[in-house]
Amino acid sequence: MIPSPLFRFEITARSVRARCGIFNTPHGELVTPVFAPVGTQAAVKAVTPAQLEELGATLVLSNTYHLYLRPGADTVEEMGGLHRFMNWKHPMLTDSGGFQVFSLTKIRKIDEEGVTFKSHIDGSMHRFTPEKSIEVQQKLGADIIMTFDECAPPYDSNYNQQALERTHRWAERCLEAKTRPDQALFGIIQGGVFPELRQKSARFISSLDFPGHAIGGLSVGETKSEMHTAIEAVNEILPEDKPRYLMGVGSPEDIINGILRGIDIFDCVLPTRLARHQAAMTMTGRVNLMNQVHARSAKPIDENCLCYTCQNFSRAYLRHLIVAKEILASTLISIHNLFMLQHLIQQARSAIQADNFEEYSSQFLKNYQSSKQ
Amino acid sequence: MIPSPLFRFEITARSVRARCGIFNTPHGELVTPVFAPVGTQAAVKAVTPAQLEELGATLVLSNTYHLYLRPGADTVEEMGGLHRFMNWKHPMLTDSGGFQVFSLTKIRKIDEEGVTFKSHIDGSMHRFTPEKSIEVQQKLGADIIMTFDECAPPYDSNYNQQALERTHRWAERCLEAKTRPDQALFGIIQGGVFPELRQKSARFISSLDFPGHAIGGLSVGETKSEMHTAIEAVNEILPEDKPRYLMGVGSPEDIINGILRGIDIFDCVLPTRLARHQAAMTMTGRVNLMNQVHARSAKPIDENCLCYTCQNFSRAYLRHLIVAKEILASTLISIHNLFMLQHLIQQARSAIQADNFEEYSSQFLKNYQSSKQ
Repeated sequence: MIPSPLFRFEITARSVRARCGIFNTPHGELVTPVFAPVGTQAAVKAVTPAQLEELGATLVLSNTYHLYLRPGADTVEEMGGLHRFMNWKHPMLTDSGGFQVFSLTKIRKIDEEGVTFKSHIDGSMHRFTPEKSIEVQQKLGADIIMTFDECAPPYDSNYNQQALERTHRWAERCLEAKTRPDQALFGIIQGGVFPELRQKSARFISSLDFPGHAIGGLSVGETKSEMHTAIEAVNEILPEDKPRYLMGVGSPEDIINGILRGIDIFDCVLPTRLARHQAAMTMTGRVNLMNQVHARSAKPIDENCLCYTCQNFSRAYLRHLIVAKEILASTLISIHNLFMLQHLIQQARSAIQADNFEEYSSQFLKNYQSSKQ
Repeated sequence: MIPSPLFRFEITARSVRARCGIFNTPHGELVTPVFAPVGTQAAVKAVTPAQLEELGATLVLSNTYHLYLRPGADTVEEMGGLHRFMNWKHPMLTDSGGFQVFSLTKIRKIDEEGVTFKSHIDGSMHRFTPEKSIEVQQKLGADIIMTFDECAPPYDSNYNQQALERTHRWAERCLEAKTRPDQALFGIIQGGVFPELRQKSARFISSLDFPGHAIGGLSVGETKSEMHTAIEAVNEILPEDKPRYLMGVGSPEDIINGILRGIDIFDCVLPTRLARHQAAMTMTGRVNLMNQVHARSAKPIDENCLCYTCQNFSRAYLRHLIVAKEILASTLISIHNLFMLQHLIQQARSAIQADNFEEYSSQFLKNYQSSKQ
């Protein structure tokens, strides 16, 4: 078989707007829909790469902002790049640092050229420009890298209009700055909760011929309905033959709703963060393992789950680990939560292949007890 | 092949006083010398049972005192016993709670019957007697359980004399109280740094026909020379055909010195505790991974080590995880440290089988840079 060209996206099945595909990267074919666990600081919290492989993860995200500050992009590059550094042999994605600069730092100055900000770690001053973000991401060396964008509060119409124009100019500069042929640069669509802005952004960004597109600035406080409207508005415009990445979204209901609207790639800290806060994810909702009711429960988190944790440990044991403040609690619950999302994604793929995703998704959403995040 | 009788100890090789053996337990044959990682609260800190199996651990210790307080022996029993509860399918050992009661708690009253103490967790009052310790250990269900002893400060001669008499009476009561045929009760020898007391204790304890013997109260502040003298004094008396367990000892040099003097079983929190304090163990000494010199080191902890950590991660990455306060640092360094001790023990076994353990041990101790603990 002749390998498909690098970063070509091939759609292998459809069910209304949901689709299955294969995105070809230097570190292997990425089967979509896909959920990427987040390794903020070049490590998925409490889980080894071997455990990630075992639970079925195929794509891992790491944060440019965090790695730029610590250990520094030069160190990662010198250590052979991010794949080698964290020992992840499969596809990787880095964000641009845009979201973190606007959400984690004290910003000193936003101007047309870039953003000057204060490190959340030690208060030192730094400056990111589109060119700098690409430079850092090229040193890190992920397969998929992202444009540097300005993240505006979702309901501020004026700010979103202005930020959008800048985000578009910055996207062009990122494209210009990018030189590595073994990285795919995805363009990010912004526009807050405003469908016209979202469509304007989708039209502009998709005109630049990126190998993939991302929807940024969602799951940041807007309603579910506003999120769905924004996704629908954007996906109406985006070309079918490029992968679509919904950034920072990863609750089970949001993943299913995203796939239903034509999203291919998701990432989120939710499964590992919930695990560190004693919450297990299941196909019907969350389970708070600290609950006294589990103290003598010999049952696993989910009797139908095939993950390492559910195959070997009771709720009573997991609760004991939490109460006793054992690190192992975070590891075992993270393994379960990440496996659960992989399983959900696999079910979704099967439903798309059988062309009954609408039925599958409405059934799933009916059974799923949504939780406040 | 006819399986050897339960708890029979067969010596398979000797090199002067060092020996290799097989101790037959309900959860499989235990090859000695053996080092047991410590799972204080029914979990080896930051390491899964699958990782423990992969790094070659065969015996795991858990603490009766901690499990009695949390989650409680009844809960562990109800969950199918300690093996099932923590998912360790191989031999297990529980201590009696003696050492913890005397080192972790505020003691209210020691009397001939037992000890009344305050929980270090919530200040609640509890009472351990020899019978209670055995009752708890029978509920936990480890393969090897220990007599309840009084732990005296190592240099207090008068206290050690009195504590010894009581420890001996308590050993008899433990033997009397024990009913489960699938558990081996080991007798503990005390006596501080006093060789005559140690020999007196060894004579008395070995007269009770336990299936194995332990040396308690060492590595608690005495000098190396005092430790070696005590071990030699005891092992002169103890029968050859029973396993000898040196409790709470596990630095590389102490293990080699123990094997040299006829010890078969070791346990210690050292490898996992050091890992949580950024120290990696190697065959030549400790490496402080926080040292700036490792910040851009592409080398693993030990270039000759075959553990998961050394095969896949650089010192630069491990240092980054430590600096970034990632839980994964504890996991990866614990895996290495535990593997290193397993490797050391395997080398020791090979040297005993080749009948050149004295040469091996003097070579090892010459190369090893001892560290203050």
